[in-house]
Amino acid sequence: MLLLHLNQTDETAWAQRLRRHLHEYPIVRRGDSFNRDDVRYVLVWKPLSDAFDGLDNLKAVLSYGAGVDALLTHPHLPDAPIVRFVDPDLTARMGDYVVANVMMHLRNQSAYIVQQRARSWRDHFPPRAADVSVAIMGLGELGRHAAERLGAQGFQVRGWSRSPKNIEGVVTFAGDGELDAFLADTDILVNLLPLTADTRGILRRALFVKLRRDRLPQGPVVINAARGGHQVEADLAAALSDGTLGAASLDVFETEPLPGSSPLWALENCFITPHIAAVSHPESGARYFANLIRGHEADEPLRNVVDRARGY
Amino acid sequence: MLLLHLNQTDETAWAQRLRRHLHEYPIVRRGDSFNRDDVRYVLVWKPLSDAFDGLDNLKAVLSYGAGVDALLTHPHLPDAPIVRFVDPDLTARMGDYVVANVMMHLRNQSAYIVQQRARSWRDHFPPRAADVSVAIMGLGELGRHAAERLGAQGFQVRGWSRSPKNIEGVVTFAGDGELDAFLADTDILVNLLPLTADTRGILRRALFVKLRRDRLPQGPVVINAARGGHQVEADLAAALSDGTLGAASLDVFETEPLPGSSPLWALENCFITPHIAAVSHPESGARYFANLIRGHEADEPLRNVVDRARGY
Repeated sequence: MLLLHLNQTDETAWAQRLRRHLHEYPIVRRGDSFNRDDVRYVLVWKPLSDAFDGLDNLKAVLSYGAGVDALLTHPHLPDAPIVRFVDPDLTARMGDYVVANVMMHLRNQSAYIVQQRARSWRDHFPPRAADVSVAIMGLGELGRHAAERLGAQGFQVRGWSRSPKNIEGVVTFAGDGELDAFLADTDILVNLLPLTADTRGILRRALFVKLRRDRLPQGPVVINAARGGHQVEADLAAALSDGTLGAASLDVFETEPLPGSSPLWALENCFITPHIAAVSHPESGARYFANLIRGHEADEPLRNVVDRARGY
Repeated sequence: MLLLHLNQTDETAWAQRLRRHLHEYPIVRRGDSFNRDDVRYVLVWKPLSDAFDGLDNLKAVLSYGAGVDALLTHPHLPDAPIVRFVDPDLTARMGDYVVANVMMHLRNQSAYIVQQRARSWRDHFPPRAADVSVAIMGLGELGRHAAERLGAQGFQVRGWSRSPKNIEGVVTFAGDGELDAFLADTDILVNLLPLTADTRGILRRALFVKLRRDRLPQGPVVINAARGGHQVEADLAAALSDGTLGAASLDVFETEPLPGSSPLWALENCFITPHIAAVSHPESGARYFANLIRGHEADEPLRNVVDRARGY
């Protein structure tokens, strides 16, 4: 039996989609009458504190969303394996966001938007993609895909991750010891890290000052499409105002929705989007979790299981 | 002997660069004392009406700039072959512009910029690149390169040109007879056509209403990086205001610089840039024309010669 526990999203639509993909497999929602001992899988999104109460026979916790940082802090998280949502649809959407934002900054779009409002006709000779290095923090599924997409546009692509990775066409760095070298030749920094104790607050002034300054006319650029917890927003606002950073694209925030009082809203060199870099498509999600349950019930091993010690 | 006739650009820098590349070959500027009979090549940009007077032994007119529409209307254009500037650097820069602007519109950036100013947190579920068809008008060097770059991002790529072309991964259409079919499945239209009597004013309301409307939340998008003469700006302003078009990126205008009185400046769904989509890099230009002159003096045939009947 699969139990749905999906908050702040359309659980009814999920139930319909999953039933279509799982045919006879029993699917229940919180309001239904069922025996909690029969629940083998629970699909969760923003689980309440009692989400897992009485689920003593769980085979797996299924997380809708690629990031599990919030789920891992749940006070009653059971011992069952946690499976993240990893799918090509979400990965492709994140790639679209990253390429779109990197290329906007390559072309100094924030400056042109400001000029347009002033009806000012003034050019800034832009570098070519091939002249600019884009560096990705986090080389999981999303980071690798983004690296490949950026490489196809001719950018010099660099990557940094906790443990060493080998990716064709990408100059890779690993661990704290190589972070400074990674940043020193970086014009545009893209954060796709998982949020862990080690990565919380990594996007702060001490990091911004290490980026390369001389190749983009506006100065170095930071793009965060991972988690608001990665960024120190006071540092971002100050760095974008005092020229330490030339521009930024932020899709995630310390508090979401971003409060109306945030100084980030008013910064013309900061592009704000409402956590839409990689929105999961329900149809794609239903297919993923249906396949996963069918496979696991047929004794196939689970894939994309979270390593709790690592935090992702 | 090479004569430089470059207006509204830094002719001194050009002279220095060309001398470095052409070594002993004689290069003169308008103020120098020289015999006009000795001039075999003239490199022009925005030539004055007397630019070609007395140049009776010209082997070729060299045009700095990929478009020769203005040059072809010069009242005293000599009979010598006209060579266009075609180089990988300029082509790459145009590719950067096209991909940046297509991807901005894929992600509905104009809507998010408006929302940011209102401090509004509201999402618009975006299609993936793979769900959207981008159509390129004009399949010369620039159009082919842009098509390849867009294909690498997963877009469905279509192309339209005067005469039939065959390009891998691109669904191609040719001539007036196939224009409607080309437009009917197009979400984002990119104009890279040469400006000729046939293409002047092609971007007008009659064309906009034929674009596909249902796949981008904002509606169809037009990107013009070719010539201002291709667009009817009154139609563009009206179509962007009444919803016929969802958004546009314009790098060229009927009059440049775009007059302060133009209604286009104030349209929040229209991204305006000051004719910088593909700015020629002087170093790359110097190398191109130096190689061309050296080759031609060694009896190699000229490449990229303009077909005057065709107009490009």
